[in-house]
Formats: sequence, structure tokens, C-alpha cells
Amino acid sequence: GLYNYLPFGLKAVQKVERIVREEMNRSGAFEVQMTMVTPSELWKESGRWELMTEMCKFKDKRDSEICLSPTNEEAVVEIMRKSIKSYKNLPVNLYQINTKFRDEIRPRFGLMRAREFLMKDAYSFHLDQDCLNQTYQKMYDAYERILKRIGLEYVAVIADAGAMAGPEQQTHEFQVVANTGEDEIAYCEKTGYGANIEKASSIRNTEDLKQINKSEQKLELVATPGMATIRDVCEFLKVPQVQSLKSLVYFDETNEKFFLILTLGDDELNEIKLKAAIQSLEVRPARDAELDHLGLPKGFIGPVGISDKVEVLYDSCVDLDAFYAVGGMKEDMHYTGFSPNRDGQTPCRVADVRLTKQGDLTSDGKGVIAIKRGIEVGHIFQLGDKYTKSMDFTVLDQNGKAVPPLMGCYGVGVSRVVAASIEQNHDENGIIWPASIAPAQIHFVAISKSEESTKICDEIYTQLLDSGWEVIYDDRKAGPGFKFKDADLLGLPIQLVFGERDFAKDGMLEIRERKSGKVHKISRDEILEKMTEIYKDLV
Amino acid sequence: GLYNYLPFGLKAVQKVERIVREEMNRSGAFEVQMTMVTPSELWKESGRWELMTEMCKFKDKRDSEICLSPTNEEAVVEIMRKSIKSYKNLPVNLYQINTKFRDEIRPRFGLMRAREFLMKDAYSFHLDQDCLNQTYQKMYDAYERILKRIGLEYVAVIADAGAMAGPEQQTHEFQVVANTGEDEIAYCEKTGYGANIEKASSIRNTEDLKQINKSEQKLELVATPGMATIRDVCEFLKVPQVQSLKSLVYFDETNEKFFLILTLGDDELNEIKLKAAIQSLEVRPARDAELDHLGLPKGFIGPVGISDKVEVLYDSCVDLDAFYAVGGMKEDMHYTGFSPNRDGQTPCRVADVRLTKQGDLTSDGKGVIAIKRGIEVGHIFQLGDKYTKSMDFTVLDQNGKAVPPLMGCYGVGVSRVVAASIEQNHDENGIIWPASIAPAQIHFVAISKSEESTKICDEIYTQLLDSGWEVIYDDRKAGPGFKFKDADLLGLPIQLVFGERDFAKDGMLEIRERKSGKVHKISRDEILEKMTEIYKDLV
Repeated sequence: GLYNYLPFGLKAVQKVERIVREEMNRSGAFEVQMTMVTPSELWKESGRWELMTEMCKFKDKRDSEICLSPTNEEAVVEIMRKSIKSYKNLPVNLYQINTKFRDEIRPRFGLMRAREFLMKDAYSFHLDQDCLNQTYQKMYDAYERILKRIGLEYVAVIADAGAMAGPEQQTHEFQVVANTGEDEIAYCEKTGYGANIEKASSIRNTEDLKQINKSEQKLELVATPGMATIRDVCEFLKVPQVQSLKSLVYFDETNEKFFLILTLGDDELNEIKLKAAIQSLEVRPARDAELDHLGLPKGFIGPVGISDKVEVLYDSCVDLDAFYAVGGMKEDMHYTGFSPNRDGQTPCRVADVRLTKQGDLTSDGKGVIAIKRGIEVGHIFQLGDKYTKSMDFTVLDQNGKAVPPLMGCYGVGVSRVVAASIEQNHDENGIIWPASIAPAQIHFVAISKSEESTKICDEIYTQLLDSGWEVIYDDRKAGPGFKFKDADLLGLPIQLVFGERDFAKDGMLEIRERKSGKVHKISRDEILEKMTEIYKDLV
Repeated sequence: GLYNYLPFGLKAVQKVERIVREEMNRSGAFEVQMTMVTPSELWKESGRWELMTEMCKFKDKRDSEICLSPTNEEAVVEIMRKSIKSYKNLPVNLYQINTKFRDEIRPRFGLMRAREFLMKDAYSFHLDQDCLNQTYQKMYDAYERILKRIGLEYVAVIADAGAMAGPEQQTHEFQVVANTGEDEIAYCEKTGYGANIEKASSIRNTEDLKQINKSEQKLELVATPGMATIRDVCEFLKVPQVQSLKSLVYFDETNEKFFLILTLGDDELNEIKLKAAIQSLEVRPARDAELDHLGLPKGFIGPVGISDKVEVLYDSCVDLDAFYAVGGMKEDMHYTGFSPNRDGQTPCRVADVRLTKQGDLTSDGKGVIAIKRGIEVGHIFQLGDKYTKSMDFTVLDQNGKAVPPLMGCYGVGVSRVVAASIEQNHDENGIIWPASIAPAQIHFVAISKSEESTKICDEIYTQLLDSGWEVIYDDRKAGPGFKFKDADLLGLPIQLVFGERDFAKDGMLEIRERKSGKVHKISRDEILEKMTEIYKDLV
């Protein structure tokens, strides 16, 4: 999980860095540089010294506890409380671009989740929520400008702010769309709605629900020998999956309580929504021993005759007056015709706890949700007064009253943007760099053996450099096929090809566009002019 | 020893960084970025895991030993041995600009010796010494260009390469001249000679030696009751200090041997020269118990009757046929008339082991040495094959033979350059930034109360920004004296002053140069034109 950047890759990283810096400056933020090592005292004040599991902690020569900062909320509050005393100095937005270290146990996907990575993090301070909202929107806009300038396909999605965050606290992720992404995002192109799948709100498509047989049914216990999955059981019972209920037993660590959650048979539970619904910080599936203790037979659990130590919660897609197949509470047995209001425990809770899926409607009913995979390259948060309060940072407001300012924080994974760009933009031959962050603009493939041709190529190279182009000059003694392959692999936006034989024939060179594959025949005198023209269309 | 950079200071650091980057690129070096954390395996290969005392070591989550890299010789050899196999790919010079951490027990002088600091380090690889010498000279030239562009008074001095370094291995320090510097440097303006005081070669000024009475003297033991210093003894004996010898007993850890070193009474011992003279890696003054054991009376040690367990070494300024006062080997006693060749142990060693001092002549006798204080901001080394050999990195040479390449390494303390610039360039009112690295170019002091004046000032500010100037706009509601004081303290090169009353009178503003104090009266329409003119002379 530790990677050195060699000259070629570093150039791309630095170009992303420059775009991020320019857009942060444009938004009115000020650049600072906090130390990579921070003392434990600060983290103890905020209460995160023990909580941050990915933090590398150690003792220095003076036996003080220090750590490699994985993030800098505490450090920035320390800077602010030393220098700012009055509301007159607010709002302020400070950012830095530097190397962060997170001691991941399983670093993976190269730069995507490395232990060391380059990150832009920004922290803003405000007297009130309105002001925080304004800066939050500025950051949202800046992130859109950054990703648009780089030229990546992205979606800004609503993310999870944590179960205990106030309803006014916003958070968004900026996801670069790519098949290899680790995150699932729900996105509707028509309405522009986007959310991390765990946070997505949507309406189940009612087309599916039309399969349900709504006529009155009796509650009946049926043997379902050897049926391991809901799909098997439903096929055997000859009912559609949406006419069955899935039973999940969860333990709520916060309130120390068991729940039986019932969703439609083809839906999945969204734990984040569950936590929000039951006001819990942490939930987990019940353990086998706990199931035994509650008298619940694993694989055949259902709502009929459930212990009153277990609270029953239905997903809001379940029709409490309809009739469903459910677990039989005995091995190899299921009930059919279970009707929650008639046969179930009362009172029961109902909440939206299902995971959004492909084909759902948006909450306003106006669009259809698609599920895409994404790479999170940016994340903006409203933090409220969590850190300013715990670290006792106050400013005097207009009335001379000491109040803890509200904070926002805003991150861009600079090195991850480069990795995401490659994941999104490549083909079977190699990388396709967006022109904005390509390590260089031109890959000059020179196929020449004679001294005369080599001299011409050297001249062209010098001419390009003198005109300010960034050029990789492949003057190696190697065959054309080999060189073209390398040029495609490295993926610079423009390939300039000098072929000795062709040039001798008609004095022409070729410009090839890596992305589109378009080829332009040009004469030597036209190189600079054409290059400018073609490049203009690529940025 | 940990400092956050706030926006103002960071701007200066980034300007130094840009100048360093441009000059490194111009020299043909390639920029890379190595990780700040490195695994112990690499350091164990080179044998430095136990030796690097300023290194912060710790274990990660997978229980691997890692450290915060204080330097990157091992890491760069690892990169090179993975990618370079042939002499055809040499020479290569790789550099990076990043944060280093050294766990100093006594960090001091703020940024000057902080635990975290921004550094440019470069590492070059070569097949032979000639090639290394060429790149070394390129780096020397690049460092000169860097310091000249920044506008600092500096001296490039010969430094100590360590006792065991071969005679062909060069090393230079680049010292910024400042009274607060930690280093002493010997410098001759006339001949251009410069060396770290510990490494300086020079000739003792013979004027002083004329005081010596050269006529034959007998060896005589004299009581010198209560005389604690050489000065006291010489006054009492009525001889000049240069007619006495100072006796120092040292233990050579490498060869496990005691030495009695004799220098002229007003000279000091240079331990670095001593180590080189006796081929030792480590020397230290003998301990009291050791002196007792050798029968040497502390404070009265001399060469007469010295134990043959102690080897005698004379500094080369001592005339072996002249007559000196020396310790009497008994409490409160001294000899006079001691003549080394006549009365001393033979054979004895002679070597240049004295510390260069103010007024010495350069080795070629053509100039006079001045001692200045300096701040080391750059250091270039030839490392030979120390790391490539120990880490088993070889390339095939022209004859197909595997050889370990030679290395050079080249450092610039980027954040220290900023601190050194302030130490060298300030007055009682505050900082005087060189224009090349000033956080901004113009400090616009606006003294206006009326809405009309404020509008004019805002317009001027916008106009300056639009023309590409970096401006700090002081539009605070505060008095002129207060604002001028702040402007001087922050020290931007140009102060633009709008005085409401003066402007109302004659439509004029003032441009003040921070460094020279020169004041120019200008009309509003002239601002841009005059600003360009005045600024041109500052860079």
C-alpha cells in the first residue's frame, strides 16, 4: 500500500493538484499546510485518540505520543482557536494539499486505496447554519468545476451523515463513474437525483407488485423440504417472490434490543436506513447463540408467534393487509397466507429500510433509478459544532456571547482522481488521458534510420518544445509496431508520427488522436498550426 | 518543533519551491515523489536501521516495522534497481520536494531546525567518477542559480565528507550569511575560498609568530600557583601565548589509542581534522579516570615524561625546534623552554589539526580569512558506491560486467531558505522580503473614511489584481500609524499608500519601497505603469 510516483505519473498528479488549487482559490479558500505529525493531546480533546483505528500512533524521543494525521479537524481547530476571537473574522475556509497516511489493514487497488495518498482537505468555520450552507454550496460548485475541467464523468450523490447527525447536516460524495468502482450509486439521469446506494430514497416500481394475488387467503403451515433460498421456496409454493416476506433478526447495540425486520422477498435490507429508523448507532445481525436463546430456527424464522422480546418492523413496501409466504418457525416449514395486520404481532413498526435497486422510481415518481458503480473522489460534509464544542473553541458573536462556530469539511482524493481517471478512460490498448491532466500532450513517435531523418525529427522536437508543448520523444532504435504499442499504452492525447518512408515520399507526417483514433495527414510546415487546432478540440 | 504554515508564510515557501523546481528541471533532473513512510527492510539492507538516531520508527497494523523517512537514499536505490539494468540508462538524477521528519531531541530556532520541514532531495546515479563529477557540477551551478534568483547573500563552502570518504569524494555546503547562523564558515572574499570552519585549510598568519623568542632556552620547571588558564600562565611567565603549547589528551575510539595533541597556546583543536589525520571515525577527550590511570594531572598535562601508552601529535604550526612553555605534569607547575625535538618523545607525529581562525591566510597565501556565521540551506555530496554496493544494485557496463553505480545526493532545505531569508533580511521594523519570494508584491495601505475614497481604493485594488499583481489590501478601520507598522512588519517589497486627505488635495498616492525606504509620489493614472517600473528594479 505504499507507492512512489515516478516522473510520468507525478506529472498527472501535479496537474490535478493545480486544478484543485486554482478552483479552491477561486472559491475564496486560503491555502495552509498543517504538519503531518500531530500530538495526541489534540485528539484526546476531541475524543478521537482511541476511535481512529487507521491512525499510526507512536512515541517520539521525548516520550510524547504523536501520530501520522489521517485527517486534520483537530489541528485546524487548534489553529483557529489560537488566532480567531470574533465573528468578524468569520467565515474562513482553510485548505491544504498534502500526503495523508491511513494504516489500512487491506490496502487495495493500487492508488485507489493506498496507505499513503495525496489529499486536498478543507475546513470552513461559520457563525450560523446559513453561512455554512453558503460555503457548502461554494465547495459543491468548486468540486463540479474541478471534475468538469478534468473531464471525468461523475455523479454528485447524497451520502450518509451518520445516524445521529441533525437533519440539517448535509453531505455529498462526488463519484467518478467506473465499472471497477467500490461504491454503488443510485442515479437518475432524467431528474439528476443521485445518492450513495445506502442513502438512496426511491419508490419500488409498482409494476412488480401487480403480480401479487390480493384475494383473501388462510394462514397455512406448509412443508418445504430442502428449500434453501426464498427463490426455491417461492417456486415450490408457486407464488411470485414479491408475495413472500424475508425475515431478518438484528441486534441494536445502542438500545440493546432485538428486531425482526420483514421486507418483500426480493428486496434487501439497508442497514444505514435501519439505523436511522430505530435511532441506533450500531446494528448487527443476531448471532446463532442469540437466535437459539430466542427460540428462533435459523433459515425458517418468521413473524408468527415471535417472542415479545423481539420487536417487529416492516419495510414500508409491505402491504399490511396483503397475504405473504413467510418462515414457518420450524425446520423445513413455511406459512402461506400470512397477513401482517391479521396474523402478526401488534403494534408493529413500519419504516423505509429497503435498499434501492435498479428500476426503482425516484421519490418524486418522475424518473427511473439506475445503479452504477462509482469511485469516490470527493466528499463534502457539514460537521456542525462537534469539534469546536469538544475542543472548546468559541468566538464572540454580534451580541458579545461566546459561541462555538459551525464547521464544514471538504476532501478531494488527488491521487485517487488520477487512478479514477484511468479506470474510467482506457481501452484494451492502454490509458486514454484526458488532455487536462495528461502527463504530456504529445507522444512523438519518430521512425527514422537515416541521419537526415533523425536531424529533421530532432528539429521538430525542439520546435515543439520551444512553442511550449509538453512532448515525449520516442527516438529509440525500435520498430514502428513496438513504438505505436507503447504510445497507445501511455495514452497521451496526441500522437505525432514521423515515418521515414512516407515522409520521403510526400513530405507528410501524421497526427493521431488517441481517444477517437482520428488520423490527420499534415505537412511539416503545418505541424504547429494543426497541433493547436486539434488540441483545442480535446480540452 | 512542529509548525503549521498559514497562508502568508506558505506563499513564500511555495515561491521558493517553484524556483527550486524550475532550476532542477533546467539541470535535467526528473521529479518523483517517494513515500514518507518506508519499510525497515530497506534500511536494514544498507545497515542504517540502527544508525539513524533521528528516525521515528514504529509498527503498523500488520506488525511490520516502518519509519518516517528522514532521507531517501535507500528508497531511491530500491526504485532504481527495480527499473534500471544497463549503463545505457545512466546517468539519471531524480529529485523530490516533500516533507521530512527528523525526531530532533532539541528542535530550535523555529523553522530553522524544526522536526518537520520541507526539503528538496535529489539522487544521481553514474557509471564512473567523471560522470558523477559532471552532474555534481551541474547541481552546484543549479544551487547557485537558485540562491541568486532568490536574492540571498550566500557562500558555497567545502564541507566535511567524513573521515573514511575517499579523497575524490567532494561535498559542499551552501551557507546563507546571517549573524544568527549556527555554522561558522571561513571565507575569503578576495580568493573566493570558502569552507565550513571544521573543514577549512589555512595558514596561520606569520605576523603573530614573530613575537616568539627563538633564542636557546633551558628546560626549567617553574611553580605557577593558582594559574587556571593558558592566558594566566603566559602572563605570569611573561611569554606571549604563541610561545606556549596547549596539551589535549584524546581517545581514538576506532584504533583504541590515546593521543596527546599539542597546539600553539592560542589555537584550538579541530576534531574533524584530527580524525582525518589519525584515520579515526570517532574521537573524544579522555575521561578523568583515564587521565588518572595514565598518571596525567588534569590542567597541568604536558609532553615531558609522557607515558609511552600515549602517542604525541603536534599541530603543524608548532616549530619543533623552538622553545615553549608547557604543562609541568605536577599540580601548579609548568615547564619553560620545552623544545619538541630536544625534549619530547620521539618519534612524534605532525599534522594540521588547528581550527582556522579570523586573520589566517588562505592556503595559497593570497588572501585573508574572515570568519562568518552561516545558515546551511543546501548540501551536495558525492556518495560513491556506499548504498549501491550495500543494497546490491548493479548495472551492466559497456563490457557486460555488473558494477554498482556511483551516487551523488543533493539537498535544499526549502522551508529553511525562507527562515534564512528573514534572518538575513530584516530591520528593527520587521521583515524585508526579497521580491522573488515575497508572499505578495504589494501592500496596499488604504487610509479612507469616506464612501467615495473607499470606492476609489476598491477600484485601484481590483485594477491591480486584474493586471496580475499580488496585493494585500489593508482596508481595516484603523489609524495610519497602526497600518504602516503592520506593512513594515510584514515586509512586502512595495507599499502603495492611499491617504484620503493628500489624495483630495492633489490626487496623488505614494509608492514606498520597503527595503530602501524610497518614496515616489504618483498620480492615480500612473499606478500600473510606475509599479511595473519600480518593481523591475527590485527583482
